[in-house]
Amino acid sequence: MTSGTWEKPYSYSFMKPLVFPFNIKLAEPSSSDKRADKERLIEEISTRLNTSLPIDLCLKTLRKLPVFLRENNFSAFAVISHTDKNIMILDVRNDDRIYAVVIDIGTTNLAASLYNMKTSEKICSLEHENPQVTLGLDVLTRVHLAMAGKADELHKLLIDGLNSLIKKLCESSGVAYSDIYAGVIAGNTIMSHFFANLNVSNIPIEPYIPTCHKFGFLKASELGINIHPESLIYIYPNAGSYVGGDIISGILSSGIYKDELPSLLIDVGTNAEIVLGCKDWMLVGAGAAGPALESGISEIGMRAIDGAIYSVSIEKDCEVKIKTIGNKEPIGVCGSGMIELISEMFQAGIINRQGKFQKKCPSIVEQNGNRGFLIYNSGSKTLIIYDHDIENFLRSKAAMFTFLYVLTRSVGMRFKDIHRVYISGAFGGGINAEKAVRIGMIPAIDKSKIIALGNSSLKGTEMLLRNSDLLTDIDSICKLITYKEMNTESEFMKEFPGALFIPHTNPEVLKA
Amino acid sequence: MTSGTWEKPYSYSFMKPLVFPFNIKLAEPSSSDKRADKERLIEEISTRLNTSLPIDLCLKTLRKLPVFLRENNFSAFAVISHTDKNIMILDVRNDDRIYAVVIDIGTTNLAASLYNMKTSEKICSLEHENPQVTLGLDVLTRVHLAMAGKADELHKLLIDGLNSLIKKLCESSGVAYSDIYAGVIAGNTIMSHFFANLNVSNIPIEPYIPTCHKFGFLKASELGINIHPESLIYIYPNAGSYVGGDIISGILSSGIYKDELPSLLIDVGTNAEIVLGCKDWMLVGAGAAGPALESGISEIGMRAIDGAIYSVSIEKDCEVKIKTIGNKEPIGVCGSGMIELISEMFQAGIINRQGKFQKKCPSIVEQNGNRGFLIYNSGSKTLIIYDHDIENFLRSKAAMFTFLYVLTRSVGMRFKDIHRVYISGAFGGGINAEKAVRIGMIPAIDKSKIIALGNSSLKGTEMLLRNSDLLTDIDSICKLITYKEMNTESEFMKEFPGALFIPHTNPEVLKA
Repeated sequence: MTSGTWEKPYSYSFMKPLVFPFNIKLAEPSSSDKRADKERLIEEISTRLNTSLPIDLCLKTLRKLPVFLRENNFSAFAVISHTDKNIMILDVRNDDRIYAVVIDIGTTNLAASLYNMKTSEKICSLEHENPQVTLGLDVLTRVHLAMAGKADELHKLLIDGLNSLIKKLCESSGVAYSDIYAGVIAGNTIMSHFFANLNVSNIPIEPYIPTCHKFGFLKASELGINIHPESLIYIYPNAGSYVGGDIISGILSSGIYKDELPSLLIDVGTNAEIVLGCKDWMLVGAGAAGPALESGISEIGMRAIDGAIYSVSIEKDCEVKIKTIGNKEPIGVCGSGMIELISEMFQAGIINRQGKFQKKCPSIVEQNGNRGFLIYNSGSKTLIIYDHDIENFLRSKAAMFTFLYVLTRSVGMRFKDIHRVYISGAFGGGINAEKAVRIGMIPAIDKSKIIALGNSSLKGTEMLLRNSDLLTDIDSICKLITYKEMNTESEFMKEFPGALFIPHTNPEVLKA
Repeated sequence: MTSGTWEKPYSYSFMKPLVFPFNIKLAEPSSSDKRADKERLIEEISTRLNTSLPIDLCLKTLRKLPVFLRENNFSAFAVISHTDKNIMILDVRNDDRIYAVVIDIGTTNLAASLYNMKTSEKICSLEHENPQVTLGLDVLTRVHLAMAGKADELHKLLIDGLNSLIKKLCESSGVAYSDIYAGVIAGNTIMSHFFANLNVSNIPIEPYIPTCHKFGFLKASELGINIHPESLIYIYPNAGSYVGGDIISGILSSGIYKDELPSLLIDVGTNAEIVLGCKDWMLVGAGAAGPALESGISEIGMRAIDGAIYSVSIEKDCEVKIKTIGNKEPIGVCGSGMIELISEMFQAGIINRQGKFQKKCPSIVEQNGNRGFLIYNSGSKTLIIYDHDIENFLRSKAAMFTFLYVLTRSVGMRFKDIHRVYISGAFGGGINAEKAVRIGMIPAIDKSKIIALGNSSLKGTEMLLRNSDLLTDIDSICKLITYKEMNTESEFMKEFPGALFIPHTNPEVLKA
């Protein structure tokens, strides 16, 4: 512990982290300086941070402050937390071991990262299944369960799952849970409501009203999250029932809300969520894209975890070459693998433009009247994609393309006017843009314009952790957003059938 | 419950109560108005109150909001709480039964009042002994006990005492504790620290540093006070270890901080606290005034409760006529009674200017070598004031006068320049100014300038309850205050001996 010298807080001169250790040395009380301990601390921090924000101290810290200061010669690391309205001093310590956690609450998966807030560096990341899956695979099932009296149970399952994820992060990094002083959460509107145990009953019923848009900062102890009890947890706001905090966080991480020229942000899961916009306006469209890009329906579909096929190439004679995550024995195909598989099958002439098997090749098999293509066979493990799997996938890719087309046309734009296309989602990290273009899933625009973001929602939470000034940006994004329901558009119905073909009945549409 | 009409909140057009019921009728959600319940409520309140303060909702209320609004056709009484920084919506209800409690935490006594915040009217008041008295009569004893490990016990005793007082207020008025949504507390610096369970160890040791000056608003549930758990309790700030929240509250209720011309505010207990000031400056002096005006030392001294002699007149032949509080059989003499008793004994020639018995009269008795004056004798109850009681009293009155003299002179003023003299304290409600002047306890100024305030500290808490704008005034008062330690002044030592006489060795001093 340094004393006598007043160091700049870590990285504070560049940006203001959501929480950080701030090294202070207070003037000792004297007959000419009789300020109370609290005011002595607050005035010092206010001056050093050069802030006009109100600064406050939580009661527990105030209770320990006098003894702590005198035992440590009036030196301390204050744990400083920024909110949109004030600065809170969460603790005083004699070390700077200050951590924070960010979590993306997906319907299927929970993804979390642990950060060292002294250095603003990521320590480790983990994912596991959202334990609510045991009660219902999809969001709507869970909403109905909540309406039937199981809201507390769903909330508890989620909190327990997050606490177990945090426990694992702590164990793998040797960090104490009580040294974690902040959290940032992003999730869709329903997941965020489950997290705070808010009523979801009016979300699925017209006019689709959530309990709240802005959750703001909530106390960890009030939510039951096992980190330092005084910690504040920020939950990304939603811009309506169908524009969740995960999308807002994704928009933040893409940066498209700061650009002069309009860009697209595509996030695909069971629901396709598309954002088109720039610094002046932002249109969010969402609709059911079908299940083909996620696990659960197709037998071979799976999440992008160890053993998932993420890359496929088909050589002459239908020889299939695959790559799997972690180089493990293949157990299924993840989203990016599925795009490559369909693209390669089409390229090799195994399927025609309608997605039907056309070529005779030894890998085409038939089982119970269904035709399929053998991707992998080790004797013990067999992976086959059936014609109905292909149909499902083509419906998804057609929905996705049509969403992009309708949304872009709705503002009088054409694909060639799009500045950039950001792709996010579980498969976003590894998507092969060329192959996605080849099957007509995304518009035929310059490859250099396509940027894969990975989990853009988690990225947005991490950015906020490092720079609390982005709270203002989040507010701005929410104000920019207009929501557009996609599947009900008559133009959608008109454009969808052509997009069911590979790449399209009229390939010119892809470039238009 | 009204619906359709939007009423003005009670008294809100005149001033902003600390907490009040606000009748709202929200626009119902529709396809063209998809705002979430929280934002719908907040925006309505923000518009109707025409405020730029941030408005927030506590989590528990947010959790119940959707069902409540739909069960009540989007009408509600919102429980609005003002703080210095924001407006909190503490609850939504379908009735306007909203109450608040104010408490003056004295070293010896707890005094509380219950208010109806629909009408801003006082419902009832109660007093009982501070249960900390069982551990130590005076403040310093309790501070030493706290330093010896009994801080939690002292805190708990106080909280239990307050809860039992609140329970009695509720029982006598039929108010439910959960309908009480705000509290205002004033007490000296040590009592306020005990209330919030803050460390007091550095208060009695030079340079006399409290843990905090501004307590602000704390949650009832965090303090263990049995009112609605989301309620915010405001604790009056102190301006140092010897200028407590009770003095700040007294200054507020006197209004002297708004006056052009300087006035005096006198609050006497075991400690004499004197304020001299106006809108531009404020000097607070405090010092030990001796115990003569409080119970505990003198056998006949007591608090101003039922059975206390508050008025005394002595006729010819030493016949004593007394009045007691509640017209009960006398059991002792309270502060105002003591002033009258000494004044009358002097007037009747029973005691001389030194306070010594001089006249032969049948009421002068002698017991174990001590001479005394028989005030009352019913056979079963005998009240005698002994010469040492008189000596103690004269020391107190001399200290009091000397404080007034030194403080006034320290700013180059004279008594005749004083705009008004406000007298507060347990005996303040009934003090006979003429008799206090006659014995030289307060300066010989025009009777019309002397104003009795009663419990000015409790009055200040009540004023804040009715008008949260006074939070700004409290800040201003704290900034105006300069503290002056009285007993250590060499001028005090010089002036004190002359004031031990009745009214003074040099009566001209009283008018100067």
